[in-house]
Amino acid sequence: MQFKIPATSANLGPGFDTLGLALGLYNKITIKPAKIQSIHVEGEGTKNTKIRVDNAFVKIFNEQLRRLKIEKQNFKFTFENSIPISRGLGSSSAVIVGAISAAFKIAKKAINKEEILNIALYYESHPDNITPALVGGFNVCMLMHRQVRFINKKLPNTIKAVIAIPQQSISTHHSRQTLPKRYSQKDAIFNISHSTYLASAFFEERWDLLREASMDRFHQFYRMKQVPILFDLQKTALNNGALMSTLSGSGSTFFNLCYSDDADRLHAVLENKFKNIKILTLPFDNNGVSFEEF
Amino acid sequence: MQFKIPATSANLGPGFDTLGLALGLYNKITIKPAKIQSIHVEGEGTKNTKIRVDNAFVKIFNEQLRRLKIEKQNFKFTFENSIPISRGLGSSSAVIVGAISAAFKIAKKAINKEEILNIALYYESHPDNITPALVGGFNVCMLMHRQVRFINKKLPNTIKAVIAIPQQSISTHHSRQTLPKRYSQKDAIFNISHSTYLASAFFEERWDLLREASMDRFHQFYRMKQVPILFDLQKTALNNGALMSTLSGSGSTFFNLCYSDDADRLHAVLENKFKNIKILTLPFDNNGVSFEEF
Repeated sequence: MQFKIPATSANLGPGFDTLGLALGLYNKITIKPAKIQSIHVEGEGTKNTKIRVDNAFVKIFNEQLRRLKIEKQNFKFTFENSIPISRGLGSSSAVIVGAISAAFKIAKKAINKEEILNIALYYESHPDNITPALVGGFNVCMLMHRQVRFINKKLPNTIKAVIAIPQQSISTHHSRQTLPKRYSQKDAIFNISHSTYLASAFFEERWDLLREASMDRFHQFYRMKQVPILFDLQKTALNNGALMSTLSGSGSTFFNLCYSDDADRLHAVLENKFKNIKILTLPFDNNGVSFEEF
Repeated sequence: MQFKIPATSANLGPGFDTLGLALGLYNKITIKPAKIQSIHVEGEGTKNTKIRVDNAFVKIFNEQLRRLKIEKQNFKFTFENSIPISRGLGSSSAVIVGAISAAFKIAKKAINKEEILNIALYYESHPDNITPALVGGFNVCMLMHRQVRFINKKLPNTIKAVIAIPQQSISTHHSRQTLPKRYSQKDAIFNISHSTYLASAFFEERWDLLREASMDRFHQFYRMKQVPILFDLQKTALNNGALMSTLSGSGSTFFNLCYSDDADRLHAVLENKFKNIKILTLPFDNNGVSFEEF
C-alpha cells in the first residue's frame, strides 16, 4: 500500500484554529507486509533518531489497528518525507491523518472522513491542519461537542502558494504559550470580522480582497517576534505580488498566496533577498490523503 | 421621489458587528418639493413627537444636501414606517442610509455604494446594519481604515424569516454596555470559528449547517437576560422548524430562519405560545434601498 498526504497551512492570518488549506507538498508512505517490522526514512527527519526508534506514525497506526480489532502484523514502513518538521506546515497532522487512514485501509474499513477527523482530534486538538490534510482544498473548521465540522472549497490552478521556510523552527506548544490569554472586545471583533470576510472571499474567489482580509491581531505578531526577519519577509512578499502573506500555523514558515502568473517573480524576489530561507512554489492540493494500491 | 428601505437583522449569532441581512419589511418615504417644510408620519413612531420635531432623517438629509452644495429647499416628507423602533431591526440604519441616498438622488449624484456606506459610518459606527439596508441580501462586513468593506450574497426564496418582536424594547447603547470588555482566548476562538463557518454555510447555501454554526458566546446571553422569555422563544423556534434562531442586532427581536415550507408552522407555534410577542413571516430582501421616481 502506498499513499501520500499533503502539507497544510493553518490559521491564514485571522482564522485562528479555524482556517486551513492543503499544499502540493507530500509525505509518501509505503506499507508492505513483512516478517519483521522495519522503518525506513528518506527526506525530512532522517537525522532524527526518534523517528526510527519511537515513530509516531507506527505508534498511531498500531493503536488504530488494535482499536479496529485487526490481528497484530509486521510491516515494512518506508517514509519519503517532503514536509519539513516543526515549521508550521502540518507535519504532525500528516502523520496522524496518514496513520489513521492507513489503519482503516488495512482493516478494509471504508474511509469515513468525519470519523477519521474525530479520531485525529484525539491526537491533535485543533482541526485546522488535520482537516485539509485529510480532504485537501480550503477549509473552514469548527468544533462542536468535541467533533470536527468543516466546509470545504476546492482551489483553482490560477493561484499558487510561494512558501518561505526559515532554518529556525518554532515549537507549536511554546509558541501558543506566548499568546495572550484574553483579548479586548475590539481585537476580538477585528479577528471575527476579518476571518469571516477572508473565508467569504475564498468562497467567492475574490482573490483581490485577501490582502485586507488576512490581517490578524491574535497570534502572528507574538509569534513572528521569535523570528524577526519574518516582518521584513511579509512586507517584501506583499510588495511583490503576494495577495496575502500569513504565518503558516504557528510558524516559522510564511505562506504567501499569489496569482500563478506572479509566482516566478515573487519566488525570485524572496530567494534573492532572504538567502537563508528556503522558498518553494507549490500548487494547492484538492485531494488530501490519496491511496494507490499495488 | 418615493423610495423604500428594508429592515435588517445584524450579528446573526456569532458574527458580532460583522454579519447582517435584509428583510422584506420596509419604511417607505416620499419626498416632494413644497413651499414650506412638513413631516407626516404613518405607522411605527407616530406616537413619538420627536420624530416630527427633531426628525433624524430630515436632519441627515439636510446635512448631506449642504455637503453636496445643494441650495436649501423645502420638501414635504411622508414616512410610512413599518420597521419597529428600538427592536434590533435596523430602524436607525434605515433612516441614515435612506437620508444619505435621498440626498444623493436630489443632488443628481450617482449612487456609489461604498461612498454612501462610508458616510453612513459617520452616523452609525457599526457596518452590519447599514450595509444590508443599502444593498440587500446577506453581507459579511469589516472595517478597514474607517471604511466599510463588504461581500454580498443574494438569498433565495426557498428560505424565509419568521421574526418575533417583543413589546419591550432594548436600547442598543445600554445593551452594549452590559457586554464583557474582554473575552477569553477560548471564547474568542469559538466566535471566530462559528462566524466564519456560518458565513461559509450561507455562501454554500448549506442551510442544514446553520443551527450549529449560529451559536454565540459574545453577546446574546447578556442581552437576552434583559428579556428572559427570549430563552424559551429561541428553544421553541429551534424545536419547530427554525434552522437558526438568533437575537436580531442588540434585540429585543428574535430572528428565525427556516425553509419556506416550514414558515407557516413555525409562525403558528410561536404566535400561539407567545401571545404578547408579534410574529411576522417575511421574505428576504435582495435590493436594499430602492427608488421609484414619479
